[in-house]
Amino acid sequence: MVAVDIGGTETKAALVTGTAEAVVAQKHARRATPGQLEPLLDVLAELVDELRGASEHEVDAVGIVAPGIVDEVNGVGVYTANLPWSEFPFSAVLTERLGVPVAFGHDVRAAGLAECRMGAAKGLRNAVIMPIGTGIAGALLLDGQIFSGGGYAGEIGHVNVGHGVPCACGQVGCVETVASSAAIARRYTARTGRAVNGAAEVASLVKAGDEDAVAVWHEAVDALARGILVLATLLGPEAVVLGGGLALAGNLLVEPLEDRLDGLIAFQRRPELRLAALGDEAGFLGAALLAIDTLEA
Amino acid sequence: MVAVDIGGTETKAALVTGTAEAVVAQKHARRATPGQLEPLLDVLAELVDELRGASEHEVDAVGIVAPGIVDEVNGVGVYTANLPWSEFPFSAVLTERLGVPVAFGHDVRAAGLAECRMGAAKGLRNAVIMPIGTGIAGALLLDGQIFSGGGYAGEIGHVNVGHGVPCACGQVGCVETVASSAAIARRYTARTGRAVNGAAEVASLVKAGDEDAVAVWHEAVDALARGILVLATLLGPEAVVLGGGLALAGNLLVEPLEDRLDGLIAFQRRPELRLAALGDEAGFLGAALLAIDTLEA
Repeated sequence: MVAVDIGGTETKAALVTGTAEAVVAQKHARRATPGQLEPLLDVLAELVDELRGASEHEVDAVGIVAPGIVDEVNGVGVYTANLPWSEFPFSAVLTERLGVPVAFGHDVRAAGLAECRMGAAKGLRNAVIMPIGTGIAGALLLDGQIFSGGGYAGEIGHVNVGHGVPCACGQVGCVETVASSAAIARRYTARTGRAVNGAAEVASLVKAGDEDAVAVWHEAVDALARGILVLATLLGPEAVVLGGGLALAGNLLVEPLEDRLDGLIAFQRRPELRLAALGDEAGFLGAALLAIDTLEA
Repeated sequence: MVAVDIGGTETKAALVTGTAEAVVAQKHARRATPGQLEPLLDVLAELVDELRGASEHEVDAVGIVAPGIVDEVNGVGVYTANLPWSEFPFSAVLTERLGVPVAFGHDVRAAGLAECRMGAAKGLRNAVIMPIGTGIAGALLLDGQIFSGGGYAGEIGHVNVGHGVPCACGQVGCVETVASSAAIARRYTARTGRAVNGAAEVASLVKAGDEDAVAVWHEAVDALARGILVLATLLGPEAVVLGGGLALAGNLLVEPLEDRLDGLIAFQRRPELRLAALGDEAGFLGAALLAIDTLEA
């Protein structure tokens, strides 16, 4: 099948083979994400056609994932802050246009599904998969199913953890305002006046003992630990899987986060902290799993 | 069947008839809850025998609910702060002793199940049922099922909402430290030096315009609204059902809580606020529903 991941700036696609337990992406294609709906639909069709042409087998289904509020049951893109649709029935329109079943899902929840079926959360019944990049979101694995809450679930990046910094969402104290990759870079620059190439450079500065970097990192870790504590209190996950760009920091992130969480936890079940296994590909792989599930349903 | 609700001081039982959609409690019995396990098991057997004797039909199953950490899948009482068991297999032991299938579940989740099947959350797929009494807990209805998280889910009373008051659980800022019925009474007395007969009396004082009562009530409403905001952010419930003693305050609670929640909500789905429909009986009724589900499984 073909899997497509619609991003804010780029739309990536891959030819994927496999089963509902495990899939592999083989050939890739990408385009800039158009700023209007009709050109976007054209790009989606072009990507599918390009990969269809490159496939040895017939493409029997397409899985597409996107950010924002997504109703995956009905395959509707409900709302996004930056992309050109509102209440648009992607599954229905593209199934008609492409001539094969099209599943439409949420990027974070689909990536979480892939981590649950074949990645770092494999075999668990209850877990939260938490990608940390420009923002922070969460895919909730509850009793073996990814929970969507009508498209509204999992916004762990916007839980108030008390640091008092205003967030672009209109709230105050949101986890992602100090703990996303983007926030870490921005806050280091705000503190020092020095531009950095993302959170990865701040991570390098932490390793080098830069005091400002250590302070910014410490605040990020504290906010993440407090967010994870809320997850433990409400959902009792067996594990929290850290993904996205910030998880590339590995133990520089995980070790202080383990310590901070140990310091905060009271009666809650202490979730194990794990690093995501599938990296950037989780989005496609999840999109392909949605397509397989649609075919099997 | 016979339904039993093990409480901290009293254990209540009822003869219950009905179906998996709706049950009615008919005859009641109660005993003080013993402080040791063997006497407790004797009391449970006595209550069941007493109600069996009063029943016109054969008792075909027993449902028992209890507080603390409960693994309802295996019928195990995992942990409680104040009751005499730890990792005790109630279902297995009592099924053997009583000669009928015994379901063992969690009091708050069972009461939530009853509100979902036949009360204020009937017909919803996603809701939180939040009893507010000595403490505050939550039963999470997610995709039509009550979610237990291995027995750890739903501790909304222990989410930090930033008021800074220490909680008996060892954390700070917990919702229930300022918003439970017990906390409202305690905080009014601490502020004024005047003893009150529970949160109900504080509610009367609020109606009479007592400034200290208004201040304490306002703080409780703010903490509850902030707790509900976290639920909306992570789970996107269609409704939050307020139960327990504090819900008897009705609009005195709901109206300011609606206003405060409107002031806090950003991009989240705004949950409808409802009052619980089943009152004190929700615990039994849920226990009976668990017993019916066990028979049907």
